[in-house]
Amino acid sequence: MRNIRTDLALEAREVLQEQNQYHIPGVKVDEDEKDGVKISRVHILSPLGEENLGKPQGNYITLEAMDIRNRDPEYQETVSKLLAQELGTLMNLNKNSVILVVGLGNWNITPDSLGPKVVDRILVTRHIFEYIPDQVDERIRSVCAVAPGVLGITGIETGEIIMGIVQRIKPDYVIAIDALASRKTDRIGTTIQIADTGINPGSGIGNKRIGLNRDTLGVPTIAIGVPTVVYAHTIGRDCLQLMIDEFTDQAGPETTFYQTLKRMDETQLDTVVQQVVSRELGDMVVTPKEIDLMINYIADVLADGLDLALHEDMTLEDIKHFLN
Amino acid sequence: MRNIRTDLALEAREVLQEQNQYHIPGVKVDEDEKDGVKISRVHILSPLGEENLGKPQGNYITLEAMDIRNRDPEYQETVSKLLAQELGTLMNLNKNSVILVVGLGNWNITPDSLGPKVVDRILVTRHIFEYIPDQVDERIRSVCAVAPGVLGITGIETGEIIMGIVQRIKPDYVIAIDALASRKTDRIGTTIQIADTGINPGSGIGNKRIGLNRDTLGVPTIAIGVPTVVYAHTIGRDCLQLMIDEFTDQAGPETTFYQTLKRMDETQLDTVVQQVVSRELGDMVVTPKEIDLMINYIADVLADGLDLALHEDMTLEDIKHFLN
Amino acid sequence: MRNIRTDLALEAREVLQEQNQYHIPGVKVDEDEKDGVKISRVHILSPLGEENLGKPQGNYITLEAMDIRNRDPEYQETVSKLLAQELGTLMNLNKNSVILVVGLGNWNITPDSLGPKVVDRILVTRHIFEYIPDQVDERIRSVCAVAPGVLGITGIETGEIIMGIVQRIKPDYVIAIDALASRKTDRIGTTIQIADTGINPGSGIGNKRIGLNRDTLGVPTIAIGVPTVVYAHTIGRDCLQLMIDEFTDQAGPETTFYQTLKRMDETQLDTVVQQVVSRELGDMVVTPKEIDLMINYIADVLADGLDLALHEDMTLEDIKHFLN
Amino acid sequence: MRNIRTDLALEAREVLQEQNQYHIPGVKVDEDEKDGVKISRVHILSPLGEENLGKPQGNYITLEAMDIRNRDPEYQETVSKLLAQELGTLMNLNKNSVILVVGLGNWNITPDSLGPKVVDRILVTRHIFEYIPDQVDERIRSVCAVAPGVLGITGIETGEIIMGIVQRIKPDYVIAIDALASRKTDRIGTTIQIADTGINPGSGIGNKRIGLNRDTLGVPTIAIGVPTVVYAHTIGRDCLQLMIDEFTDQAGPETTFYQTLKRMDETQLDTVVQQVVSRELGDMVVTPKEIDLMINYIADVLADGLDLALHEDMTLEDIKHFLN
Repeated sequence: MRNIRTDLALEAREVLQEQNQYHIPGVKVDEDEKDGVKISRVHILSPLGEENLGKPQGNYITLEAMDIRNRDPEYQETVSKLLAQELGTLMNLNKNSVILVVGLGNWNITPDSLGPKVVDRILVTRHIFEYIPDQVDERIRSVCAVAPGVLGITGIETGEIIMGIVQRIKPDYVIAIDALASRKTDRIGTTIQIADTGINPGSGIGNKRIGLNRDTLGVPTIAIGVPTVVYAHTIGRDCLQLMIDEFTDQAGPETTFYQTLKRMDETQLDTVVQQVVSRELGDMVVTPKEIDLMINYIADVLADGLDLALHEDMTLEDIKHFLN
Repeated sequence: MRNIRTDLALEAREVLQEQNQYHIPGVKVDEDEKDGVKISRVHILSPLGEENLGKPQGNYITLEAMDIRNRDPEYQETVSKLLAQELGTLMNLNKNSVILVVGLGNWNITPDSLGPKVVDRILVTRHIFEYIPDQVDERIRSVCAVAPGVLGITGIETGEIIMGIVQRIKPDYVIAIDALASRKTDRIGTTIQIADTGINPGSGIGNKRIGLNRDTLGVPTIAIGVPTVVYAHTIGRDCLQLMIDEFTDQAGPETTFYQTLKRMDETQLDTVVQQVVSRELGDMVVTPKEIDLMINYIADVLADGLDLALHEDMTLEDIKHFLN
Repeated sequence: MRNIRTDLALEAREVLQEQNQYHIPGVKVDEDEKDGVKISRVHILSPLGEENLGKPQGNYITLEAMDIRNRDPEYQETVSKLLAQELGTLMNLNKNSVILVVGLGNWNITPDSLGPKVVDRILVTRHIFEYIPDQVDERIRSVCAVAPGVLGITGIETGEIIMGIVQRIKPDYVIAIDALASRKTDRIGTTIQIADTGINPGSGIGNKRIGLNRDTLGVPTIAIGVPTVVYAHTIGRDCLQLMIDEFTDQAGPETTFYQTLKRMDETQLDTVVQQVVSRELGDMVVTPKEIDLMINYIADVLADGLDLALHEDMTLEDIKHFLN
Repeated sequence: MRNIRTDLALEAREVLQEQNQYHIPGVKVDEDEKDGVKISRVHILSPLGEENLGKPQGNYITLEAMDIRNRDPEYQETVSKLLAQELGTLMNLNKNSVILVVGLGNWNITPDSLGPKVVDRILVTRHIFEYIPDQVDERIRSVCAVAPGVLGITGIETGEIIMGIVQRIKPDYVIAIDALASRKTDRIGTTIQIADTGINPGSGIGNKRIGLNRDTLGVPTIAIGVPTVVYAHTIGRDCLQLMIDEFTDQAGPETTFYQTLKRMDETQLDTVVQQVVSRELGDMVVTPKEIDLMINYIADVLADGLDLALHEDMTLEDIKHFLN
């Protein structure tokens, strides 16, 4: 499983299911469907669950909103509201909470620009609380936001920058937004994962060496991610698996070749992928051709969802007024 | 072959070679190497050649500049100069020639934005000839340029727009720049195809219904294209082929499975691809994650090459002065 | 008056009024106010009116929506609807009318980018009529749009490009969108002028040599413009005028200096401006610091207004569905 | 003087000179000219000098490179080299120095985007020192860079963000890049001020409440600024002054009006400006129409100058190799 690159706990579980492991020790899953959005909640309950899914202990909520590609404004609003609701279950906000939203990723690389774009669109209010407190609308909370840029552009780990800011402004929560890699192309731009584990080294489509989580930042940290790419070698590996399944059927259980294929375990398959596929595909990614439009669209959905979750006494209409 | 989407004549020929067709009737090929750039010239000489390669009769010159990914400024200049030289062999310019450069594609879709970006960077001079003729530098030719946008944004076929402009300004040559699809990821951003056949319906990564060529425009039309994507199902198909080759070897010639695989001809393979791969991959494309940077870089190379070809008495230094 | 650069017929009239010319031969004006928007209609009825206002004969409708700076979404919608209504009075559309929208100006120069931005946002439908006529929604009209870029980038006069396109696609109306210069800073981004005279050479903030009007294009041409700059020397001149008025009052009618100031006619004032102001201010423009945001905002208003005018059976809600 | 908004020490001194104060107590000035660039060094030596010029004690070096508008690549390189030299005189770098470059201002507001654009273009190397120290080229120093965004977008004072980062990464120098306001339009995009006083509250074209200087950051802080706007009321005030001078001459010394004008002191003039000019001009700014292009151009000059100053064993050619 380790060779299939996915940032979604849901997909980590799927991989195990495909290997007929339906009960995963240390992991509890429940599923739900609301207004055309499938909501899965993967709870990793113990170190055993951690090991089995390869993700830190905590709660992972996934919204699969496949119809979002139709760009129906009402459906978009539905998804934003569900996102706000689910976010609400992971946070314990009071009237005086201060929230720092962090947009991870690189402005200049389209599939990695989701975080900065969300930061650019959300309602930021902390400066009103700090500098003109008498103008504070009672419906808003204190929200601030940064998109610090990636290591290659700043020369500083994002984690270090955020630790520095957190130490100064002492928020009650950090919410980090990131572009993810999934293993299925139909999840690109349609699936939102919320996790109360924060961001961990190596996750997201950029490279990170320091996590953004309660351990490193000292405050509860929520991660929100949306897949924007599938690594091309994941596609390659999937094609091989499909082919093997096809051939196993055709060869018939009595043949030696069937035996060969059956015996071909994960490690061997990975070796083949390594040899025949990865060499050529390198760090290629698979995206929809319209990735630029898709990122803009999903950034709107996340920004609306965040605004609704953080200022829960306001409607989207109120927020639009406020933003202008 | 028809199911592997490639806009490169070179790759159309490669596909045939992989099927052991080394001599292709109606097609002449010569190859060259200069300063680390492989130059292939595919001449489609007859209707038979057209049919064999699936491309219109004419000359296709391909520069493969694999080291361009290292972003060495001298190598970049070398490639621009070779591009200028090869372009020169396909045109017969005199001092009074007027050239219209057309940037095809969509500004808002990164992998399709190559054409508009080149138009934005080249030296445009026609207005000096028209409105301040006494300030014309004797080293320049009359060059104009448009990037009309794609059908979905304008509601008008690019071909119609260009026909309208050509009829009014009557250029001696049209040069159309377009982003292409190739079948190998290592050609993305590294390979430049120049063709004196112009652009034909359905080529490029956007959809076109009307060609831009001597037939439609009434003037000789050169096409310059660079692959910026590989269609994801091309990757899928390639993986299957690699797997089949691998398995054929392993199975051994005496097995019935070897026979099955051997008998699996193109059509059957396409059917499998259709069933197991295309369904999932749809119109997904494979690109390097840094596609944004790559497009900027190759746009510079094309703009420099065009400037050198169209104003052949100027150096890149002269042109930089002129542009500012 | 000629030295105050304004593209608004309304302001040309104001200048005369400031010189106590309240009745202008050949010009008829009526004024209206709806929902917080002042609507002025200047009708230039004869060559005498043309000469007096320095604008071609025709109808100029101006919407002054000063509150648009508050960015209230409802007010924005009100302005779009009024724009649609007024546009409707200048056109005589039927079900089969084809409309070409032309975005004048330069993408890369913020205050000149209004036209291209509107083109990018409107609902374009002509390709549905042409290529998939059975999918045509009966509520829409055939609309196409181009933003051809400016002379310095294309080497071709915009007028020539549009003439070429008009000859091929034969629209029933052309609507040209342009950024204007006004003489008062509070009109920047708040005032919309619609004129059935089209665009004339030298108007707009870019330079144009060929007009876009019924004479050059052969079809009725509507111009829609919004001031995005005031020329800095206009500001300089206004300051001087304010000062002279101030001093004339202070000096008292019996003084010789009062006489001097009174005698200081337009020409002399222009000479002073020329000498002391223009030299330093050159082609400087005055804009709000937030010009980038303002252009985006007013581009939305124009796009919505155009969509409502051209597809009058649709609501903004319907159009938003359609655009996505 | 306080009512003329200028961020340049050079202009603060000019204002005094225009009031015939040629010797300013506590201030020492020397001037130089190299390769077509005028270099002025204003040294504010004491609290008296501070009060007289309205700027903190320290050294202000101004490069006036008027010919930069011609966009000659060699002249651009000359200016970058002179900038590097002058920067060198204000810093005391050794091989192990770590430098943090801070790009102040707002990406989305063109005249305020200079700082972020410089950060995007400079050579950043700290991550090589931190994560792959064995690949460190001996000619480079450890440089990192951030463009944190403005208060209205982040909800956090830039000063707070930078303090947080400085505390974590402990640089030896901070260099802050900012867009400035000048009082003369011909300084826009042509004049570079370097100051070892850092950035102080209220300077730059955005609003700042916390300074970035040795007091707030605890490390020596250099500010580099380029005027990108003149406030429109500065223009208004200058026009009035020009007019008064003109009228004083015309009125003749024997008239009472001459006396009136002569008596019209700074405060009165400011009152008139306030009444007749500021009301209308608000926060309008004067910029060249091509501000977008100008910002890109001067950002290149600053980035090259910084790279040369911080990695003084490298040429621009070397740096270009490194950046790619």
